[in-house]
Amino acid sequence: MSHIHLHRVLPYSKRLMNAVVLPGETVIDATAGNGNDTYFLAELVGEKGKVFAFDIQESALAATAERLGPLNDRVSYHLDSHANVDRYVERPIGGAMFNLGYLPYSEDKTIITKPDSTIEAVHKILGLLKKGGIITISVYDGHEGGKEESDALIEYVQSLHQADVHVIRYELMNLRNNPPFLIAIEKLRDFEEVTRIERTES
Amino acid sequence: MSHIHLHRVLPYSKRLMNAVVLPGETVIDATAGNGNDTYFLAELVGEKGKVFAFDIQESALAATAERLGPLNDRVSYHLDSHANVDRYVERPIGGAMFNLGYLPYSEDKTIITKPDSTIEAVHKILGLLKKGGIITISVYDGHEGGKEESDALIEYVQSLHQADVHVIRYELMNLRNNPPFLIAIEKLRDFEEVTRIERTES
Repeated sequence: MSHIHLHRVLPYSKRLMNAVVLPGETVIDATAGNGNDTYFLAELVGEKGKVFAFDIQESALAATAERLGPLNDRVSYHLDSHANVDRYVERPIGGAMFNLGYLPYSEDKTIITKPDSTIEAVHKILGLLKKGGIITISVYDGHEGGKEESDALIEYVQSLHQADVHVIRYELMNLRNNPPFLIAIEKLRDFEEVTRIERTES
Repeated sequence: MSHIHLHRVLPYSKRLMNAVVLPGETVIDATAGNGNDTYFLAELVGEKGKVFAFDIQESALAATAERLGPLNDRVSYHLDSHANVDRYVERPIGGAMFNLGYLPYSEDKTIITKPDSTIEAVHKILGLLKKGGIITISVYDGHEGGKEESDALIEYVQSLHQADVHVIRYELMNLRNNPPFLIAIEKLRDFEEVTRIERTES
């Protein structure tokens, strides 16, 4: 059904990347996982582009490298927390994708993304992003620790100044089986560090 | 800033209508208000199309008719509840727009849309809609009675079968001044009455 306009979260996040990332740009897969987004991004940036792929699990990076095949020369792999993204990546980047939670199909579901490092990574990537670039974050909150992470992330994004970024929440409301919801952040003007404000109103 | 991809709710709802409504089709403005959506829809359907505009306040229909000017011959006005939409409109329609709450700039803010009639109207319009058509509902819940209406509407749309429709919630997360959120419903297959199901999971 390619005619659907109200897409599920994962295809919608790809459409956003597709709308803003240009061939030859640098982009980030903050949670390489099984490599699906890395592959999508490697195709998107083309042969002159570069994808920085992060994961804290060696098995994830191995699976991603296998998935990428001939596109591996467009990818730079980092077995490190995405919170350290600024050690490897230089401004400007065209976009970044996160899939929170645990590694899909993993046997060890205790290895999950955590609020502090997720927020630190998002905050740093906002500084690295080009004006007009977008960060997509697919949030799963059904697992242990998931709600804590999503609450912290929501509080963080609500503190971002509306002159700096637009932040949307997008979700399908009538699907079973706890689908993810999407938080997407678009950078509206050039800055090296996004402004955080105290919310006192409602 | 026409390059923004993460639009606010009102422009996003117009983009959805723009994507699915064809010239010459019939569409519905379920809450004519000051006529902004009626005008947008009248332009969208073109000179062979028709907009059915509903409002329970005569002043709203008068303001809308004034706003429409030369496009008035594309509009059929109904001083009646949108819950009675099926008395006036025949299948199929291309799309429908709702703006819940009270009439903007009205002195009497006690005249508001109500849960039962809103849900009845949405339910009937889902039957009237073409396959692939979309209903957009901009929900304001900051006023007295607003939260009650949005909660009832959310419960209703969550009961719609995922094989019949996709329902999304879309909102800006970091704007001040209580902006509306959007509920949009896309009809995935042809039916005369949408299936409601009991949700027992989570």
